[in-house]
Amino acid sequence: MAFEYAQKVLFRHCDPAGIVFFPRYFEMMNDCVEAFFDSALRWPFEALHRVQAVPTAGIETRFRAPSRHGDQLTLALEIEAVGRTSCRYLMRARCGDEARFETRATLVLVGETGRPEAWPDPIRAKLTDIKEGRG
Amino acid sequence: MAFEYAQKVLFRHCDPAGIVFFPRYFEMMNDCVEAFFDSALRWPFEALHRVQAVPTAGIETRFRAPSRHGDQLTLALEIEAVGRTSCRYLMRARCGDEARFETRATLVLVGETGRPEAWPDPIRAKLTDIKEGRG
Amino acid sequence: MAFEYAQKVLFRHCDPAGIVFFPRYFEMMNDCVEAFFDSALRWPFEALHRVQAVPTAGIETRFRAPSRHGDQLTLALEIEAVGRTSCRYLMRARCGDEARFETRATLVLVGETGRPEAWPDPIRAKLTDIKEGRG
Amino acid sequence: MAFEYAQKVLFRHCDPAGIVFFPRYFEMMNDCVEAFFDSALRWPFEALHRVQAVPTAGIETRFRAPSRHGDQLTLALEIEAVGRTSCRYLMRARCGDEARFETRATLVLVGETGRPEAWPDPIRAKLTDIKEGRG
Repeated sequence: MAFEYAQKVLFRHCDPAGIVFFPRYFEMMNDCVEAFFDSALRWPFEALHRVQAVPTAGIETRFRAPSRHGDQLTLALEIEAVGRTSCRYLMRARCGDEARFETRATLVLVGETGRPEAWPDPIRAKLTDIKEGRG
Repeated sequence: MAFEYAQKVLFRHCDPAGIVFFPRYFEMMNDCVEAFFDSALRWPFEALHRVQAVPTAGIETRFRAPSRHGDQLTLALEIEAVGRTSCRYLMRARCGDEARFETRATLVLVGETGRPEAWPDPIRAKLTDIKEGRG
Repeated sequence: MAFEYAQKVLFRHCDPAGIVFFPRYFEMMNDCVEAFFDSALRWPFEALHRVQAVPTAGIETRFRAPSRHGDQLTLALEIEAVGRTSCRYLMRARCGDEARFETRATLVLVGETGRPEAWPDPIRAKLTDIKEGRG
Repeated sequence: MAFEYAQKVLFRHCDPAGIVFFPRYFEMMNDCVEAFFDSALRWPFEALHRVQAVPTAGIETRFRAPSRHGDQLTLALEIEAVGRTSCRYLMRARCGDEARFETRATLVLVGETGRPEAWPDPIRAKLTDIKEGRG
């Protein structure tokens, strides 16, 4: 089961063409990942970022259809792979039944000096459970 | 020869870890594409967007190293493919000799209804010249 | 009774000092006003903006204390004055009992040409009711 | 003589009404202040922010006329008052001869704990010279 995050398209997301300006989608994706760490992993970003960080190492996005002001989007996040210091997620956004974008990204846990660090055991266990559908 | 765009990393780009927050990179990429349309294609976004638009259909980015407040970035854009209604660019960002990110994206020209439209002939000719290194 | 809007301070709001970057507060204020039009006035921005707009003519903000990543903010909006084509609101943000900012702003309803337009009667009536505490 | 900062209105600044979304103006103001600290005070934000910060304590803005995509704005900053730990600036934006906004804001220098700190003597001297028109 994917982790779902609701996001209405707001005025601030939209460009002069009246559709979501694509860099704002990356802010939404980050908000969804932040909510996932908070609600699903119980490791809120505000705690994690005291000394560590989870920068995005790579991201690929395919935009299927434009989103308009007022659209009620659902972003659904699945964990596809869990490494020692990283994980890969797939995120799909839809409005009703219509696909809006899919994105795949790799996050890396890094310490204060920016070096990759192993996930804490309970986090790695949860990520693996979620990946295996036991989340 | 790539089209080059200079961007200093400003306070507003940076996150609590003191490095560029990745959605802000996508704003920089858009600024670089906007400057390319203005200076290289002589088709400023403010003219193009009166009735048309050039949404990003897909984008893939690999972040090589973090950028810090004050870094002087150079974004270098090359045209890799020119279609009837679309084009693909490669953009590389570096700070001095250090790679920061590479991105590949496909832009599509669309009309008022959001349907793809053929590039105007002089624009397609310029895109092709730039792609072939005659730009 | 003020209209209340909850906003957790997210990663994307924060600057290298780890506190909310002040332009992000203005995005939050806009989100709160957008929610007020939607929930309290039943005139969602996505409907209003088809032909009209409600630009901010003036805004004054006093920041009382910094907000940090993870803070649970409440933005409370009151209508202080209702004109023929404009209204003035007071918005106070707090985290628990601690004041974070107060802002006063004037919104003007404008038509397609950017000229001020009178509020539709039912909207003016609701704004007045809210101002008088009958909202 | 005011410190001047040029800013073209870009696609990313504009809202569905085709004009600058007002929170983006506050990002522009911050960029102008950052450029002023860099060029006029020779105290770049990236150096200042290693241990200190200059949060905005209060800001008042009057928007005179909307700005559109492609407009070439000039932001002109003057120092109006210099305190022990703070300063007040006036910033006026225009496009050609047309006024777009005026803003007055108070910045406070704070240390690592967030407490106000006295300006370093050479900075206070420069701020005073600029205020007196000897800048």
